[in-house]
Amino acid sequence: MARVSQEHLDARRRQILDGAARCFARNGFHATSMQDVLKEVDLSAGAVYRYFSGKDELIAATVTEVLDSVQAMYERAALESPPPAPDVLIARTLTHMTQERSAVLDTGEWAFPRLMIQVWTETLRNDELSALLRERFTKVRAAWVKVVVRYQEAGMMPDDVDPDAVARTLMATAQGFGAQYALFGPFPPEVLRAGVRGLLGMRETAEGAGNQSVKSG
Amino acid sequence: MARVSQEHLDARRRQILDGAARCFARNGFHATSMQDVLKEVDLSAGAVYRYFSGKDELIAATVTEVLDSVQAMYERAALESPPPAPDVLIARTLTHMTQERSAVLDTGEWAFPRLMIQVWTETLRNDELSALLRERFTKVRAAWVKVVVRYQEAGMMPDDVDPDAVARTLMATAQGFGAQYALFGPFPPEVLRAGVRGLLGMRETAEGAGNQSVKSG
Repeated sequence: MARVSQEHLDARRRQILDGAARCFARNGFHATSMQDVLKEVDLSAGAVYRYFSGKDELIAATVTEVLDSVQAMYERAALESPPPAPDVLIARTLTHMTQERSAVLDTGEWAFPRLMIQVWTETLRNDELSALLRERFTKVRAAWVKVVVRYQEAGMMPDDVDPDAVARTLMATAQGFGAQYALFGPFPPEVLRAGVRGLLGMRETAEGAGNQSVKSG
Repeated sequence: MARVSQEHLDARRRQILDGAARCFARNGFHATSMQDVLKEVDLSAGAVYRYFSGKDELIAATVTEVLDSVQAMYERAALESPPPAPDVLIARTLTHMTQERSAVLDTGEWAFPRLMIQVWTETLRNDELSALLRERFTKVRAAWVKVVVRYQEAGMMPDDVDPDAVARTLMATAQGFGAQYALFGPFPPEVLRAGVRGLLGMRETAEGAGNQSVKSG
């Protein structure tokens, strides 16, 4: 076998994962065979199986790479001073993903959000994938917690707020936007940003039903 | 055929939908047959087909009922004075759904969040379901917009914020929490409430990177 550069290996791996993402996003995991993936990426079985033993490995590699990349993004954000506000960071997440996972379908539709909700459904009947997703999700959440703690250190958020609850909420918002993208089509990052900003700018009325008063800092 | 009360018809319909929800949540749509549903609800084919012609109708009825019920909840919230703050309303959504769609699996796990992400995945390859979900989603979003406009009227949110962007964001947050519930298990409504509250209580730093200043009301 000819020696090939790491760069070439990485590019080939990326090509296979992008092709698999298109197949999965188009038809779902169960209706996609490894033959479909070979055809999509126009490579021989030998070339593909050198990297991935089968569909389960393709899915696991995708989940791992995506969540590692998102985690790293939030880790970097926690080092910025001051930390980027939630609206900035949520919009940045969308931009980041369109760059990191840029595969599109024949319709021009971005494949990633469709793939995301398919992964979610797949975890319901695949314990290994479920464990992997849980492990990586926990790390992403911990990275978000670092950002939230930085908000508190910067005086942007009261100290008595539970950082983990806020981290979960910000992840939920990002996840929900991903679902809306898959279900109802594209929208620009500005929509996310304006919506999250609107919440951050909210004030409480003194007579707010069911509202406790919030410490102002 | 004996005449039966509307109440009986409604209860029977509910029984079938709850049984179908358990089957779908447990095994997914494609691995579930109408035979499975009949067995789950312990009714004859004649009794079930009187209400639903097949799986597609069961799924469509579930989507319609759930989103109509959520829409009505937000419509009612828009009439409250002052309108309930987002943290209250997001937590109320979870409580509402646990009451409205209370079916649990043999494991004790709440079936609805699993069903929700399965519906999302199913819409990717079912155009009719996709159109239905889009139509109902649009109505729920319009109901959220009414609440956000009330926030603005009550002086809780600046007038220059786009209500639709905020409505999308609040829905995304609720959707993302639903996904987290399905993927990672239960959490109390207080977590949602604390997390959303933490965001509402945020302040901006003057030097905030990438932040525009927010009008204070």
